[in-house]
Amino acid sequence: MQRKLLSLCVALLFSIAAMAQNGKAKYVFYFIGDGMGVNQVNGTETYLAAMEGRIGTSPLCFAQFPHVGLVTTFSGTNGVTDSAAGGTALATGHKTKNGTIGMETDLSTKVKSIAEKAKAEGKAVGIATSVSVDHATPASFYAHVKDRGMYYQIGKDLIAADFDFYAGSDFLQPKGENGEKDLYTQCQEAGYAIARGHADYRKKARKAEKMLLLQPEAASKQDNTAIPYAIDRGSNDLTLQDITRAAIHFLSQKENGFFLMVEGGKIDWACHSNDAATLFREVIDMDEAVQVAYEFYEQHPDETLIIITADHETGGIVLGTGEYELHTDLLKYQRQSAEAFSRMLAMQHQKEGKGFTWDFVRGQLEENFGFWKHIDLNEKETAELEQAYKDFCEGVAKDNKTLYASENIIAATARKIMARKAMVGWVSDGHSNGYVPVFAIGTGAENFDGRIDNTEIPKRIAQIAGYGE
Amino acid sequence: MQRKLLSLCVALLFSIAAMAQNGKAKYVFYFIGDGMGVNQVNGTETYLAAMEGRIGTSPLCFAQFPHVGLVTTFSGTNGVTDSAAGGTALATGHKTKNGTIGMETDLSTKVKSIAEKAKAEGKAVGIATSVSVDHATPASFYAHVKDRGMYYQIGKDLIAADFDFYAGSDFLQPKGENGEKDLYTQCQEAGYAIARGHADYRKKARKAEKMLLLQPEAASKQDNTAIPYAIDRGSNDLTLQDITRAAIHFLSQKENGFFLMVEGGKIDWACHSNDAATLFREVIDMDEAVQVAYEFYEQHPDETLIIITADHETGGIVLGTGEYELHTDLLKYQRQSAEAFSRMLAMQHQKEGKGFTWDFVRGQLEENFGFWKHIDLNEKETAELEQAYKDFCEGVAKDNKTLYASENIIAATARKIMARKAMVGWVSDGHSNGYVPVFAIGTGAENFDGRIDNTEIPKRIAQIAGYGE
Repeated sequence: MQRKLLSLCVALLFSIAAMAQNGKAKYVFYFIGDGMGVNQVNGTETYLAAMEGRIGTSPLCFAQFPHVGLVTTFSGTNGVTDSAAGGTALATGHKTKNGTIGMETDLSTKVKSIAEKAKAEGKAVGIATSVSVDHATPASFYAHVKDRGMYYQIGKDLIAADFDFYAGSDFLQPKGENGEKDLYTQCQEAGYAIARGHADYRKKARKAEKMLLLQPEAASKQDNTAIPYAIDRGSNDLTLQDITRAAIHFLSQKENGFFLMVEGGKIDWACHSNDAATLFREVIDMDEAVQVAYEFYEQHPDETLIIITADHETGGIVLGTGEYELHTDLLKYQRQSAEAFSRMLAMQHQKEGKGFTWDFVRGQLEENFGFWKHIDLNEKETAELEQAYKDFCEGVAKDNKTLYASENIIAATARKIMARKAMVGWVSDGHSNGYVPVFAIGTGAENFDGRIDNTEIPKRIAQIAGYGE
Repeated sequence: MQRKLLSLCVALLFSIAAMAQNGKAKYVFYFIGDGMGVNQVNGTETYLAAMEGRIGTSPLCFAQFPHVGLVTTFSGTNGVTDSAAGGTALATGHKTKNGTIGMETDLSTKVKSIAEKAKAEGKAVGIATSVSVDHATPASFYAHVKDRGMYYQIGKDLIAADFDFYAGSDFLQPKGENGEKDLYTQCQEAGYAIARGHADYRKKARKAEKMLLLQPEAASKQDNTAIPYAIDRGSNDLTLQDITRAAIHFLSQKENGFFLMVEGGKIDWACHSNDAATLFREVIDMDEAVQVAYEFYEQHPDETLIIITADHETGGIVLGTGEYELHTDLLKYQRQSAEAFSRMLAMQHQKEGKGFTWDFVRGQLEENFGFWKHIDLNEKETAELEQAYKDFCEGVAKDNKTLYASENIIAATARKIMARKAMVGWVSDGHSNGYVPVFAIGTGAENFDGRIDNTEIPKRIAQIAGYGE
């Protein structure tokens, strides 16, 4: 009896010791929902429940993770951060000036990212996003520039960082400067295979040593600054889930484990445009990418850490505008992003000329926003849209420019009426300071409970994964 | 050696078994910040840091608790809950119709609160608030009425519940109905000592078997619906910290342990009024009450559970209005709630007659909002205030009525300009759906990690504290 108890105790002690020591996460997934505050997550869950005809929430995969924290996001210089300072905090553990990437607020001292540390430990490293590969958030993991707008330099830093896998949309300033070749050629000369879309990736992955996965050329021709919004997506378009699947496949070739950052970059863009239907589908899109990571975690539960967080909140979205009701269910009638709708109308206007009648536009609004057909509009709202149509045709109203998009007055009016009907409020087209959530599962996930500063997240990941200085 | 290892192992096994079994929280503190969403908490922390001249956050006591969760708050009937349905969910674990207290959505089936269950287990029970003792949130713990407006019935339910300790401000409908005596007399006949203020409490506590602690009569004369806002408080006014201290003192007399609910009820009121300076000081006020509970926890760390959460968010407050800056530091110049400022101006107007000049009002704005003196106003803003003054004097502008207050146009304009200067946005004067936070420390606190529905909170408390059905 005593012997049995002893062996039980020893086993118990060993397992506790094992838990303590072996807290090394061989595989790290770091998802960043750009602009994804607490309400963006809860709003998406409300939207999902509404799709099922219920009041309440239907949980996202990542929101069910057992560990949750609230993250403070202010930058080194401002109460409200931008994505460069926010990304730098999440990548390096250092607060910096808004607009700066991978440097201290002195704009000269470079600070190492956890991706760079992971590489130094011999891990395979992947940096992926739904926007351009050189955008502020991904760049924070490999670049060191005083201004996020220095896209050519960021592209050069991408190559110099020599990570195994990058994915997203095209370089924003690929053209060679100072007599250098363009960035794509530089990439290839540095040993990167460049794949365009998922099918092309599959063809090239096997033989490639390093990979730059971009969206298909057709999509780039339409918009070379980002992959399309989930709501606007065609069957050949790259998705964040495709990218994550490719990244896992590619990075798993190295035996030493990997670090993968995946940014849901267009969550932020949809919020800058105050376009809730588009936003919620972007969050779902990132969640589908998380599901792929979660499947990997299920296969490697003792060696995997998955973190989901955000760099800041965008738009100041509020679920409910005062009437103690919420009608996110109505957002299902929106079939396109306001941005794509605007683009489509502008093209039609150019094409149709005099055929671009109010009846035509009304039909498009019916089709793409469900107005009149599924959502009752009162006389005033109908008049607002008709006035927008007139102003558009007469060229009276200038396009409304938000940070990443521009939309004509018809699309802007439709989007605002939709928000009013769904009872979703927005405070601005910029960022806000407000806790963002962090969700965690796997090895060391308990370290993300509680209220923490964004700079703590990479520090704790480095500790859990055993990345040195 | 083997012997030593064995004894170590046995000790370890015992302590694990003890942790598992003795997960009984003898003392439960349940703080509810009415209307306290995630941004209300983060905003207060930003305000505290700004007071210290820093960008960033200075943590509240409760926000440092090790366990954090995100709570969904929708009601049984609405995407956005009111305080009756929200309180009922947090008290009983049942979602109900907005407006209903302690009953199912059928408006007849009564549901038991954890306070009632605690009492059935022989625990001492206290229900305290900064608003009236019969308001929706406290009432959810002892009353069962289909409509939160049935204040007389709620008062009778308070007496019938027979809890040990109640605190807050006066009954809203004390007058006896159906030939019954008034509620205060009924309370006394049921064995309650009625204390008015903290000093009176100390006098009466020793001999009292049960206690109804109300605010001093002077404060009730000023406003009998709630204790004053922290920002407006005089030295004799009751504070939430006083109340919590008194509750601990009173409930500790029973040896079996206690359950204490404390509501920061005016957090909600300040949010209904979109008054950020007043709101943040209310959150700090509740935090000071939490600190008293925390001191108790430090003395009884293995038997105490402290939970802080909210029933819903109010106002849709957003920290940042688009310019990537936040100036909560300016809120320090606000010396009164907008409500008290409005009341003061109305009195002065009545008293001064023609002496109520723009210069007088301008002086008051300087004094109470820091305008011109500490905060530069541009010409347009000055003109806005001057116009508000004229409209007020000419009786052109009606008072702006929010749920719990009414304010004249001068106070309303000052409040709005202050929000603009501080870069704090508000979406409405009502509630919103959006995760609210839950913070926990002590026995069983780990059960509040992750994303949970509000109905789970009382269920988990009951389990941790060992309250039966």
